[in-house]
Amino acid sequence: MSHAKKDTAPTRETAVLHRSLTSLPHHVVSASGSSLTLANGRKILDSCGGAAVAVIDYGNAEVIEAAVAQMHKVSYVHTMNYTTNAAEELARCILEPHPSSPNFDHGLKKAYFVGSGSEVNDAALKFMKQYWVERGEPQRKVYVARRQAYHGGTIGAMSISGMPARKAPYDGIMMPNVEFVSAADAFHLKGEDETEPEFVTRLVKEIEELFERIGAENIISFTGETVSGAALGAMPAPKGYWPAVRALCDKHGIILHLDEVMCGMGRTGTYFAFEKEGIKPDVVTIGKALSSGYAPSSAMLVNDKMLDVFRRGTASFNHGHTFQSHPMCCATVLKVQQIIKREQLVERCAEKGEQLAKLLQDAFDGAEYVADIRGRGLLRSVEFMLDPRTKTPFPKDTAFGANVQLAAFDLGVAVYLGSGTVDGIVGDHVLVSPQYTVSDKELEITVWALKKAYEKTVAGLYKAKL
Amino acid sequence: MSHAKKDTAPTRETAVLHRSLTSLPHHVVSASGSSLTLANGRKILDSCGGAAVAVIDYGNAEVIEAAVAQMHKVSYVHTMNYTTNAAEELARCILEPHPSSPNFDHGLKKAYFVGSGSEVNDAALKFMKQYWVERGEPQRKVYVARRQAYHGGTIGAMSISGMPARKAPYDGIMMPNVEFVSAADAFHLKGEDETEPEFVTRLVKEIEELFERIGAENIISFTGETVSGAALGAMPAPKGYWPAVRALCDKHGIILHLDEVMCGMGRTGTYFAFEKEGIKPDVVTIGKALSSGYAPSSAMLVNDKMLDVFRRGTASFNHGHTFQSHPMCCATVLKVQQIIKREQLVERCAEKGEQLAKLLQDAFDGAEYVADIRGRGLLRSVEFMLDPRTKTPFPKDTAFGANVQLAAFDLGVAVYLGSGTVDGIVGDHVLVSPQYTVSDKELEITVWALKKAYEKTVAGLYKAKL
Repeated sequence: MSHAKKDTAPTRETAVLHRSLTSLPHHVVSASGSSLTLANGRKILDSCGGAAVAVIDYGNAEVIEAAVAQMHKVSYVHTMNYTTNAAEELARCILEPHPSSPNFDHGLKKAYFVGSGSEVNDAALKFMKQYWVERGEPQRKVYVARRQAYHGGTIGAMSISGMPARKAPYDGIMMPNVEFVSAADAFHLKGEDETEPEFVTRLVKEIEELFERIGAENIISFTGETVSGAALGAMPAPKGYWPAVRALCDKHGIILHLDEVMCGMGRTGTYFAFEKEGIKPDVVTIGKALSSGYAPSSAMLVNDKMLDVFRRGTASFNHGHTFQSHPMCCATVLKVQQIIKREQLVERCAEKGEQLAKLLQDAFDGAEYVADIRGRGLLRSVEFMLDPRTKTPFPKDTAFGANVQLAAFDLGVAVYLGSGTVDGIVGDHVLVSPQYTVSDKELEITVWALKKAYEKTVAGLYKAKL
Repeated sequence: MSHAKKDTAPTRETAVLHRSLTSLPHHVVSASGSSLTLANGRKILDSCGGAAVAVIDYGNAEVIEAAVAQMHKVSYVHTMNYTTNAAEELARCILEPHPSSPNFDHGLKKAYFVGSGSEVNDAALKFMKQYWVERGEPQRKVYVARRQAYHGGTIGAMSISGMPARKAPYDGIMMPNVEFVSAADAFHLKGEDETEPEFVTRLVKEIEELFERIGAENIISFTGETVSGAALGAMPAPKGYWPAVRALCDKHGIILHLDEVMCGMGRTGTYFAFEKEGIKPDVVTIGKALSSGYAPSSAMLVNDKMLDVFRRGTASFNHGHTFQSHPMCCATVLKVQQIIKREQLVERCAEKGEQLAKLLQDAFDGAEYVADIRGRGLLRSVEFMLDPRTKTPFPKDTAFGANVQLAAFDLGVAVYLGSGTVDGIVGDHVLVSPQYTVSDKELEITVWALKKAYEKTVAGLYKAKL
């Protein structure tokens, strides 16, 4: 019996609890460079790097060698008692000035390594809460976050996420004391007659009103993705938003936490996404691109303002994981980051990002259902709407975005689907987030496939209307 | 400048946010077999496998080879769209009858892979909540868990943990709706005149009273470590406890979730710890020994009762992680588990566990401050008390357990420290949890060092009294 023509594992045999119990994911048998090979022999150009994870080539020999070397040296130690060169070097590597912006002083001093974006955002929530306990302000219990934001799947990270559809089944078990403000989303929220500065003023006023209503003395932190990732679809904040939020946090004495799990580590064309915003956060969380997917890895980076309070207090973050600072993960990430520095891939990401933006603009110029093309670096998205002029989204059951994604996949190109773009329920976008090593040819193929997929979806739409 | 004689990284240089900001962990430069080598050349016999993580030798060539092979094949895919042979085979390998107990039917049908014990317990909380939503009982919002239990560091996992000292700085941000009952802890809680069955009846009555007070129709699940791990120090439940809890959950229609992150995967001498209890849980979480530490890995295993409700509902667990079913982690774990099966290491763990128990009993027979020696398989602990007859623990600042652990380390043997054994604040134990491959000689050295360390600590105690 041969399954050579199937690219999915047979239903009856799977013992994996996949996301769906009825349909099966594609079966990947090999991955190298920028593409995945399915069980039926089909090659897929991965133009979203999983979910903006892969930033260098799949199967990179140097990275594998680094992982192996570390496994031979020290495969595992527990951080309650031990550290390794891998962890120490990685922390230095991440925190030292990055060659892509050697004069930028991010102010971050220490790195805390765990295994996923969710886990690290969860850790950040605990770190920020403990900060206030160390400062003698244990009454602070409220996190402020934004709607249309995704910070992870653990209960803590999900609690500060503003995605109603993903949270719906978990109503009643989320953390208490999370307050939400509007997303920094000029595309959907800015009034037609409103200027960008007016919009920013309105957003900041909303935050300040919340701070005052709750009482700043009860608030732990403000969390936001510097550039919104999958939830809003590669949405940079309007100009002036982050400096105003930073000033507001300073005025009220509230920690500013930037979630750069998706937008950080070069993805938007600068090493940290906040480099473009002219601000310095207190706490930054990173993941995904950090490891390029080679090993589950994420990190929390914190500044001296945070650390000094701990130093004057218990001097101990009361939190830990069994696989924290995992030696093999750290060594693997270290090599990925060294390659990125050596090959100037952050700079390349910025450059290729501009090319991708232009290709998308050219391809979708005047397209009837394309409402917005946005992003920064190699984190770009195309948003679809039934009527872009009135900003009317497609009904949910049209599944426009899902159809585009499927059609692109049929053409051999993987892009990442976003849904609920408008309000967490309706709204369609696809995310394009290729590796930083992406070639011009691959960018062209990606945009070609996306355009074709769009056209096929539109054709299907007209057919459905008949 | 040479650091050859130091086993710690220099304070000023570390950019890692270690657990303490003032003291540094030991610097491990290599690990092989059962020992770790520090930067100053000292060799440490690891008799706790990190934190009951390492179960086979460090630096195992077969495991490394499997990791490398997978990295060359498929280093990373995102489970939103893809699966790999590594994940599929691992799920089958874990769920098929285990050679150590080929006739035991655990009833678990699917496996969900993530990266840590915390992450997987957090996922289990969501899975169990969604189960009730799928069944049309969204009003269920209460988790029942036990005091003196540790389920992880994420906010969800920490919320169901009963460790006051670890939770203290996070008061106010934990999940709402978690109710605690007494630990299944005959050593500290059983009355002198109470028989074991009477004690079990009392514990079960306490649970049932809680169920009735909250209303079973509002309760999601009951979570417990089959054999209590680090918090209580290798404490098996009293005979009859688990069957009674299973019956109670059935009577009231409540999900039974066993946390076997620490006690599962052979650690207590059977593949699942619950094999010895004569019950079948609905949800089991595993980790640590699963990967022997080679890669961050954990899994949730669920039975058909759970799955059928999802199948009749949305057929989709509304949860996912970027590094879920990570191909390299799965391939690595698969090899570890294959080695365990082939080398009959679960059986060996049971056998060596009995030897270890006897060695500990003999070594500490009549020791003044040894209150209890307990455990199962290769998860054993020694609890110390100021007055074992009256069960009076040492004052917290005596740090008796910490001193024993440090003295053992000075003698070249690593054991795992437990503190707050009695009530989360006071109480001292050390955990001995070597690899399943541990030799007789290593067991003897471990117990010798522990005894010596105890004697040194006692001597220090008398000195302090003068």
